[in-house]
Amino acid sequence: MLPMHRHVDTDLNDLKDLLLSMGGCVEKAIDEVHEGITKKSESHLAQVEKQEKLINELHTRVDEECLKFLAMQAPVASDLRLVLAVIKINTDLERMGDQTLNICYNGREFLRSTIEQVPKELDSMKKEVRFMVKSALDAFVRQDVELCKKVLNHDDIVDRYRNQIVDQLKTKLKSDPNNTDAYLNLIMIAKNMERLADHATNIAEDVIFVATGTDIRHGHEQIK
Amino acid sequence: MLPMHRHVDTDLNDLKDLLLSMGGCVEKAIDEVHEGITKKSESHLAQVEKQEKLINELHTRVDEECLKFLAMQAPVASDLRLVLAVIKINTDLERMGDQTLNICYNGREFLRSTIEQVPKELDSMKKEVRFMVKSALDAFVRQDVELCKKVLNHDDIVDRYRNQIVDQLKTKLKSDPNNTDAYLNLIMIAKNMERLADHATNIAEDVIFVATGTDIRHGHEQIK
Repeated sequence: MLPMHRHVDTDLNDLKDLLLSMGGCVEKAIDEVHEGITKKSESHLAQVEKQEKLINELHTRVDEECLKFLAMQAPVASDLRLVLAVIKINTDLERMGDQTLNICYNGREFLRSTIEQVPKELDSMKKEVRFMVKSALDAFVRQDVELCKKVLNHDDIVDRYRNQIVDQLKTKLKSDPNNTDAYLNLIMIAKNMERLADHATNIAEDVIFVATGTDIRHGHEQIK
Repeated sequence: MLPMHRHVDTDLNDLKDLLLSMGGCVEKAIDEVHEGITKKSESHLAQVEKQEKLINELHTRVDEECLKFLAMQAPVASDLRLVLAVIKINTDLERMGDQTLNICYNGREFLRSTIEQVPKELDSMKKEVRFMVKSALDAFVRQDVELCKKVLNHDDIVDRYRNQIVDQLKTKLKSDPNNTDAYLNLIMIAKNMERLADHATNIAEDVIFVATGTDIRHGHEQIK
């Protein structure tokens, strides 16, 4: 006998698909902003604004659908936890869109400078951030707690890259005060890139909550 | 005849009270971190960490209560919108706690420098931020859309102070490279202080959504 099709599953899958579309836009925005800065290309930066608009549209839509779902289905237990996680992940993805736009503004100012080289660690850092974002979303789809733990561990790697980059740029600030603005922009870019990783961490924590019912956000519980 | 007492009202009022306690901790953390930096006082900075711990405890508790409320009461219409707003405001308040801690870290590094004076606009900026946070929470309690609009308008004032402070510090970075670290810390403090205002803006937008059912977050709708 085929398993009975629950109407509620369709709605939850629709919500998941919407979040994944948003996640795709965030990943593209990260790629474009990084290309724009490292290649000093305005056309890549312009793509970030397009993605951010799409993210905002999806953000409003996901919230509307969650409200409808809660009102119509009155879910409990794991379905309720899932919808609450969707609401939170939706907020994080929207703020990630905002962050890519912040990076884009600093990137645009950096493009006006005569500095050609960005710290080489920015590339590795971006790869780590991209891995964390993609993995957090994959973990959400598969409710994969192991993958979430991997995401949480990678946050330290991103922090280390950020520190290395900021330290280099501080040295440059002292030795080359003519390019203060450019170095400050690069510092802000590295710091905001790290904040993207923080949002991926938030998502991983929300997924662990959905999958296990355990809130690990403030170290109250340890997931082994 | 006395109006019938609805069980649901008690729970929603409890949720509101918990959020207001959190808001009180956030306000105190902002006061302490500002005192700590402007008076170069470590004891004030230590208070920030205490408040942030309380904020985290309340954050977990509010989320638990919202989950319980949704599961037990299956609210609809304005009660449902209110609970969803509580979940979001809870997230914003918790991130504001994180921000005060970030400001605290930069403040602690600044305390180690020989610079005695912070830009005088930092004081006015902090007052604006405090006004926005307090007003957003008052607006939440009273569902006061007019006050929310005031909060949204004040965000521009905070942005202007931040820009003035950062411009001054950029000039100092160029003229006094021996104190690069101190000026960088002050730049980060001003930027993170401005992010507190962004969170207050988010809260005001959520309150408008509860009070009117209108989502104004991405400029889809205008509240006159």
